[in-house]
Amino acid sequence: MADKLKVSIVGASGYSGGELLRLLLAHPRVEVCEVTSERFAGKFASKAHPNLRKRTQLRFCRMDELKPCDLLFLCLPHGRAMEHIDAFRALAPRLIDLSADFRLNDPGEYQRWYGKPHARPDLMTEFVYGVPELHREEIRGASLVTGAGCNATATILALYPFFKKGLADPERTVVEVKVGSSEGGNAASDASHHPERSGVVRSFMPTMHRHCAEIYQELGFGQTIRVYFSATSIEMVRGVLATCHLFLREPLEEKDVWKIYREVYGKEPFLRIVKEADGIYRYPEPKLLSGTNYCDVGFQKEKGSDRLVVMSALDNLMKGASGQAVQAFNLMNGFEEALGLEFPGLHP
Amino acid sequence: MADKLKVSIVGASGYSGGELLRLLLAHPRVEVCEVTSERFAGKFASKAHPNLRKRTQLRFCRMDELKPCDLLFLCLPHGRAMEHIDAFRALAPRLIDLSADFRLNDPGEYQRWYGKPHARPDLMTEFVYGVPELHREEIRGASLVTGAGCNATATILALYPFFKKGLADPERTVVEVKVGSSEGGNAASDASHHPERSGVVRSFMPTMHRHCAEIYQELGFGQTIRVYFSATSIEMVRGVLATCHLFLREPLEEKDVWKIYREVYGKEPFLRIVKEADGIYRYPEPKLLSGTNYCDVGFQKEKGSDRLVVMSALDNLMKGASGQAVQAFNLMNGFEEALGLEFPGLHP
Amino acid sequence: MADKLKVSIVGASGYSGGELLRLLLAHPRVEVCEVTSERFAGKFASKAHPNLRKRTQLRFCRMDELKPCDLLFLCLPHGRAMEHIDAFRALAPRLIDLSADFRLNDPGEYQRWYGKPHARPDLMTEFVYGVPELHREEIRGASLVTGAGCNATATILALYPFFKKGLADPERTVVEVKVGSSEGGNAASDASHHPERSGVVRSFMPTMHRHCAEIYQELGFGQTIRVYFSATSIEMVRGVLATCHLFLREPLEEKDVWKIYREVYGKEPFLRIVKEADGIYRYPEPKLLSGTNYCDVGFQKEKGSDRLVVMSALDNLMKGASGQAVQAFNLMNGFEEALGLEFPGLHP
Amino acid sequence: MADKLKVSIVGASGYSGGELLRLLLAHPRVEVCEVTSERFAGKFASKAHPNLRKRTQLRFCRMDELKPCDLLFLCLPHGRAMEHIDAFRALAPRLIDLSADFRLNDPGEYQRWYGKPHARPDLMTEFVYGVPELHREEIRGASLVTGAGCNATATILALYPFFKKGLADPERTVVEVKVGSSEGGNAASDASHHPERSGVVRSFMPTMHRHCAEIYQELGFGQTIRVYFSATSIEMVRGVLATCHLFLREPLEEKDVWKIYREVYGKEPFLRIVKEADGIYRYPEPKLLSGTNYCDVGFQKEKGSDRLVVMSALDNLMKGASGQAVQAFNLMNGFEEALGLEFPGLHP
Repeated sequence: MADKLKVSIVGASGYSGGELLRLLLAHPRVEVCEVTSERFAGKFASKAHPNLRKRTQLRFCRMDELKPCDLLFLCLPHGRAMEHIDAFRALAPRLIDLSADFRLNDPGEYQRWYGKPHARPDLMTEFVYGVPELHREEIRGASLVTGAGCNATATILALYPFFKKGLADPERTVVEVKVGSSEGGNAASDASHHPERSGVVRSFMPTMHRHCAEIYQELGFGQTIRVYFSATSIEMVRGVLATCHLFLREPLEEKDVWKIYREVYGKEPFLRIVKEADGIYRYPEPKLLSGTNYCDVGFQKEKGSDRLVVMSALDNLMKGASGQAVQAFNLMNGFEEALGLEFPGLHP
Repeated sequence: MADKLKVSIVGASGYSGGELLRLLLAHPRVEVCEVTSERFAGKFASKAHPNLRKRTQLRFCRMDELKPCDLLFLCLPHGRAMEHIDAFRALAPRLIDLSADFRLNDPGEYQRWYGKPHARPDLMTEFVYGVPELHREEIRGASLVTGAGCNATATILALYPFFKKGLADPERTVVEVKVGSSEGGNAASDASHHPERSGVVRSFMPTMHRHCAEIYQELGFGQTIRVYFSATSIEMVRGVLATCHLFLREPLEEKDVWKIYREVYGKEPFLRIVKEADGIYRYPEPKLLSGTNYCDVGFQKEKGSDRLVVMSALDNLMKGASGQAVQAFNLMNGFEEALGLEFPGLHP
Repeated sequence: MADKLKVSIVGASGYSGGELLRLLLAHPRVEVCEVTSERFAGKFASKAHPNLRKRTQLRFCRMDELKPCDLLFLCLPHGRAMEHIDAFRALAPRLIDLSADFRLNDPGEYQRWYGKPHARPDLMTEFVYGVPELHREEIRGASLVTGAGCNATATILALYPFFKKGLADPERTVVEVKVGSSEGGNAASDASHHPERSGVVRSFMPTMHRHCAEIYQELGFGQTIRVYFSATSIEMVRGVLATCHLFLREPLEEKDVWKIYREVYGKEPFLRIVKEADGIYRYPEPKLLSGTNYCDVGFQKEKGSDRLVVMSALDNLMKGASGQAVQAFNLMNGFEEALGLEFPGLHP
Repeated sequence: MADKLKVSIVGASGYSGGELLRLLLAHPRVEVCEVTSERFAGKFASKAHPNLRKRTQLRFCRMDELKPCDLLFLCLPHGRAMEHIDAFRALAPRLIDLSADFRLNDPGEYQRWYGKPHARPDLMTEFVYGVPELHREEIRGASLVTGAGCNATATILALYPFFKKGLADPERTVVEVKVGSSEGGNAASDASHHPERSGVVRSFMPTMHRHCAEIYQELGFGQTIRVYFSATSIEMVRGVLATCHLFLREPLEEKDVWKIYREVYGKEPFLRIVKEADGIYRYPEPKLLSGTNYCDVGFQKEKGSDRLVVMSALDNLMKGASGQAVQAFNLMNGFEEALGLEFPGLHP
């Protein structure tokens, strides 16, 4: 099958690596050549990802065994991609990095939010921020693309139309994300120990979440903005719900809000406006999105005030990581944007 | 045992009625005389409340079979207590109503939030709002006490010191509560059907939650205030976590916030300030509070902004309903305030 | 698209109907013509199945509005298909019935387990029991196929090789299934009310589960057998785990058991033998199978006894209902057996 | 308070140690003097047990700092108590050990199930097996008492009347326990990592569970018996449900079974027979027992066979560990047996 792209995944034993592998194995235009894991080297991929039993005979190799390929996905822990970036570029002409290393353009912002200097400030502006709804054309032509934070993606997609159009008070937005346990990765800890983690409503980051940096970068449009962000862990494995309280600069009714979202997102393959007058799924619900690449957005305008509450939901491992990476990958290669991302999700 | 008060519970087959029954059966100064339920009349109380097997031989009676007693607890669905209030007052010299009927003082506000006129506006100011942290002295002398909404209690206790002292911008606070399924009561519906309700992050009330009325009443202190309130249902049966974003009028550091909470709540038996530098329970966690009467309050001041994030947690059936009612009951009777409310909660 | 089969789904608003619709919408050789629901008639299919938003514009119609088609799937509540079977046969030359109506061949057994006479005993032997691993060739030529019970499928597939070969004591097997809440269908009840259903380990059917009738029919092979069956509901929405304790008639070691399963199931597309020496997914795990058509089977031979413990896991709405129906559908039509059933499941 | 016993807890930072501390702090006849933890030495007890905030100012000390006391509770990991037993006996005249070290009387059985020789075979018969329903009188006079395994307790209490009376086939019983994550203790591991542990139905011990040794010891009554035991982890933190399939030697009807249980357990303070004809809690349900010392037992006799299915439920940290230890402690000291164990559990 000569028309298949040869791709490899670096750091494939983690959750985003495994999700990427699941997607790419089923992608009609991809041949997955190698998957790396230092911990699992020599073992079958299905040892780390038991859902892939009988789906692949791939075994993990070590990073230093990687062979050249057409495109390399990087799923390493934060801080590692920027250390090894030259080696990766030598292996493949195109890279998609799912870590946080190249999401920010500004070394000062990186230092501020990550608490240390960036290892390769020269490359920071080379990477395109891989949210297609904001940067589709840039992604098409890019050879270096970075994924986006899961909470950042949910927040940015909820707020983007209003910040772009200047319809929101730029300094009053409050955002609270409810997140699942898979956001923390696959390393066990006291905090993730089931008897402790089960059933929590844990205010793990009331302020200062690093994804704020991405939100500021993408929603600023040249002016000073403020997003008061908090993150709470709840009983959930996959999923994010961002509840965004934005304050309108001018009186809009719900039909106006509908119009704005339809105008901006009407043709997006993975954005759905979810707002129903009755029923039990009136607003975006992350549990319906497990395994899908959708970001569902819904809203309610408060009567008698200028508050617009926007809810956005996604699967942090899909639209918040690997699914969005495949979406960007499709764009980079001129494939149909939804290729390999067709799973609609389950109910109930 | 001549020194026991004779009490009865009207509407005892629901969740708050059952919780009250559990507490009162173990209360050393109480004799529970009658418990009513139209649906379960004639059946053992343990049929509706299986945790009380082998704990009581009480059977439900119908409301019209009630005999006089020293104090009557009303746990009827909203709207029913005000219809029958004269009959209840004829049965007992003192009443504690857990429904929403007498929480508000102002008929106009009732009409606004409940969408219909109040049946007994003449009595609205007769009831004391039963949050001891705000109204301890009034409760001591009262014969008519109303419970408070669970979400309202969590929010009010989080914000009270700052609104009372005028330290918060009165018109910018955003509050999001995460709530469990028992808030909806014991009546099955499509929305509560397990396959649908399980695992949700359901934005069931992005705006216009009725508990706002109580919050405004209790935190206004004579000035116009605004609390932008949203409620989200999550995978949880008991519990509320209110995440409150308040904006300080003057620059306070965390030690100042500590000082304020300690000053106001330092002697409260059921308020704990929970804020730790490390560990996995750094902030208030509702799952630790199941069955207890605590409201835990914690906070984080955002660096570089005027936002103070306050988290408060409680068990909606305890401090948010029946536990707080017993706390008020103890005050009304001159008992030790924590009598019958000693359960510390479980971990893990 | 001349090569697509026209199919319709009767009773499409329930869980198995919705799952079938999800599968068939994505099936490359199918055109879904009509979906019926008396309750939702006129409404979009996505109203009942919110995962299908933006996936289909189909609306539910009433059963009496159905037009002829190539094949009809019946997803009605038990007892309804046999009442209307002539009408359905008039509409389509081929039927696949997912209800329990035509699973049994013997009117006496039907009477015994369902407590009433069968409405159409003349047709009971016309339907092929739609478990491909047991009846592949019969299904290929069939025009009437019945689905199998979810718990029955899990149990039968676990035990089949040993009962067929006469290796198990035919009268000692004990089976306990752990099941999720979606087995109960989409109708809300006190038993399914989230505060009550959440976290249960409910012994809902310690004996006399109706699926026993199917197990006896399929595993008897002409001799008297006994399967001591119990069913317990646990905190889960989708999924079945059957733990089967069978007692070997001759001394077999684990490698012999491996050999037997490989021999019988080695070429099955949807049977995986899951048995690992280490790791955290050593045996079949239903949560990995949500949305997939796999039945995973694993085992452990007890040292020093003749007990063989076999665990089998599946998704009750997939291999236990709609997925298996599509698998049978593919066989009936000469399609590749796994067509439309490619989803591998999620981890974590 | 001269009439309080001075007790200390060795190994108090784990789950059973924390549960014991919760119970003993509220026990009217106990003064908790010291609690040890090597890991948390110097820190407040509430650091490990956040439910005890504002309940105690105790700090953990190291084991080698322990002072003499009236009675010592040992909550160390298995294998440690027997190493240090002489030191503990030097500190207190009476010991209650919650580990597995002294549950068995027979060194050969210990070797068989624990895979190593017992360090102190001379003391094995000195300890009384601390299940009051079986050994009440021996416990009353004992100075050395051992706790019982949680799964063993559930199984033994379910089966005891039938094995004692010789009514069950001694070699056919099959038992499957469904257990929560707290059984595994408080040490984080890959297996307990929330994204992996959440929602599992994990066949973690299909055969060879160590608690079998206790079951054989307590139910043998001088004859050879067999209990085919399996253990499955489910989505639950606290709780055990044992489903026991026993085969009757003589034809008994359900009323006979009722009679037997009432005769044996009718006066037991913590055994309840739970069997109702309707409703949603017809059989024992572990979720109702969190925090209580009850073992609920229910049953169903299979029509047309000799199988009796007995279900028993308990909280593994209470009746399965610390609650039962306090029950034994009360007996040893001549206190009312239920003292400090009054919590009835929550619903919902």
